[in-house]
Amino acid sequence: MRAAVLYGSGDVRVEDRDRPTISAPTDAVIRVSAACVCGSDLWPYRGVDSFGEPTPMGHEYVGVVEEVGDEVRDVRPGQFVVGSFFASDNTCEICRAGYQSHCVHRAGVGGAQAGYLRVPLADGTLVATPDVPDPDLVPSLLTASDVLGTGWFAAVAAQAGPGKTVAVVGDGAVGLLGVLAARQLGAERVIAMSRHEDRQKLALEFGATDLVTERGDDGVARVRDLTGGLGAHSVIEAVGTGESMMQAIRSARAGGHVGYVGVSHGVELPGEELFFSGVHLHGGPAPVRRFLPELIDLIWNRTIDPGKVFDLELPLDDAAEGYRAMDQRRAVKTLLRP
Amino acid sequence: MRAAVLYGSGDVRVEDRDRPTISAPTDAVIRVSAACVCGSDLWPYRGVDSFGEPTPMGHEYVGVVEEVGDEVRDVRPGQFVVGSFFASDNTCEICRAGYQSHCVHRAGVGGAQAGYLRVPLADGTLVATPDVPDPDLVPSLLTASDVLGTGWFAAVAAQAGPGKTVAVVGDGAVGLLGVLAARQLGAERVIAMSRHEDRQKLALEFGATDLVTERGDDGVARVRDLTGGLGAHSVIEAVGTGESMMQAIRSARAGGHVGYVGVSHGVELPGEELFFSGVHLHGGPAPVRRFLPELIDLIWNRTIDPGKVFDLELPLDDAAEGYRAMDQRRAVKTLLRP
Repeated sequence: MRAAVLYGSGDVRVEDRDRPTISAPTDAVIRVSAACVCGSDLWPYRGVDSFGEPTPMGHEYVGVVEEVGDEVRDVRPGQFVVGSFFASDNTCEICRAGYQSHCVHRAGVGGAQAGYLRVPLADGTLVATPDVPDPDLVPSLLTASDVLGTGWFAAVAAQAGPGKTVAVVGDGAVGLLGVLAARQLGAERVIAMSRHEDRQKLALEFGATDLVTERGDDGVARVRDLTGGLGAHSVIEAVGTGESMMQAIRSARAGGHVGYVGVSHGVELPGEELFFSGVHLHGGPAPVRRFLPELIDLIWNRTIDPGKVFDLELPLDDAAEGYRAMDQRRAVKTLLRP
Repeated sequence: MRAAVLYGSGDVRVEDRDRPTISAPTDAVIRVSAACVCGSDLWPYRGVDSFGEPTPMGHEYVGVVEEVGDEVRDVRPGQFVVGSFFASDNTCEICRAGYQSHCVHRAGVGGAQAGYLRVPLADGTLVATPDVPDPDLVPSLLTASDVLGTGWFAAVAAQAGPGKTVAVVGDGAVGLLGVLAARQLGAERVIAMSRHEDRQKLALEFGATDLVTERGDDGVARVRDLTGGLGAHSVIEAVGTGESMMQAIRSARAGGHVGYVGVSHGVELPGEELFFSGVHLHGGPAPVRRFLPELIDLIWNRTIDPGKVFDLELPLDDAAEGYRAMDQRRAVKTLLRP
């Protein structure tokens, strides 16, 4: 099969690799229908995250179950499935509390930018769609695997809901889908912080009510202006830098909620400022599995169309261009077809 | 009147000062029945927090209203009142959301270790007891003013409740009353982390079910042992150092809640560890006013007896010894009688 492999900074190659096989009785192997490039894939791509040897890339996927291990009960060959980027048993106490990305048996899922993918703990990780989806639903279902699930978690963590004003820091795919999630959860007002026209347009399509182009403390001042000087009730942080975290914390009112999902890089939070801010802080790797049934349903019923976030679609063999386009911010999000 | 004034590191003097007067029409002046020394008073006492000139000390108080300004409607001379350490209007949007310590009109209350005290925004800050209390209730009512209110907020922020295991980092008065709060809120199990026998004893009286004497990562390991390897559902942090914050965060399970109320000193939280911990973090200066009616009720009905936390009672003139005893950890908490 063909697979995208990162060899070094800026060096993604698509090469032939062995098809994965069942290695544990709880595994499934799926034929990948679509995968994509994640904002977090850009950290190692840019050399910010180090890695030892050539690394098969990709952790967002939808596909058709090809084979299952002996202990797999709920997932069957032929089913179209959506999975999450952490495999989880979905039965332990942590999973039952809705934190499947911290499952006591969690395992990473990697190498999804490929023809086939082995998914550990298949019963706890994969969710089948009601039927084989119409082709136009596939991109939206793919978003549920991570980028939508992560934006959704951020909105839930930020307690977006009726009567709330939600500010969104970060105009990448997760931030944009955080806008969609906040509106879907009933937020009255969603302030998208973006200075890029194409992303602003998408934010408005996803339900943003206000746009703020300023960044940093100027952005904070604008959010405060828009909220009677108090700050937003809810803030979604979808970048992962110290600057974006502080922008998020300072944009929230005392007693407000910051949901942060940008993978932290070099962040040190000043305890004293955090203490006196009075905000709630919650985030981390999104427990996408918690939301999959609900998100699949919303997509299946065509209530939401998160697939719009893909503005570049390429055959898997052109994965390198997909990374480059996102790295150079020519694309918001790249869909890859094996 | 007599008043405790901090002149420098370790130098508290009780001296004659002018009685405060009404300076704004929303003020009240109260005759202080009892005040106390706060753990946070020890920061400037130890020279950790700097201050410019001699500073009147104390922000925890109960007393009898002596005089009110023209615009005060709800509080009357002769009433016995409990106040909080931040004055709040209790009507702004932030107050109505329960964050009175971040009121848009908030003002500090200082100089409570004195015969009389001026309290700004009296209607929003002071809560009258049903009647003049029996003398034995005064210490407990005094705790509601800060140390109990703060421990209570920490327990609420940590979402202590039925079915939950709560770990408490810090065996000062706030931590001990966090134990009481957690139990009162219905927690199934409360793990007090303390290596001091007198404080352990008080923790048990307040409802602790388990004691952990280890600190730092050893303490974390013990909490994990006691919770099936998962960590506590809820953790109260009542110290304010980087070590105690990390001990609290690491003692919580993924998806768990850390309520932190120790005033942050030199804390830098590592973003990456926080991100991957998956905990909820909430805290800061406690909105004591939110809890005052409920806490006064629980004390008035003798459901709780938080006044036990005072193990030293002195006349105001001996305030210096009250500070020394707490600084040297000979006393948990000092009550001062003007």
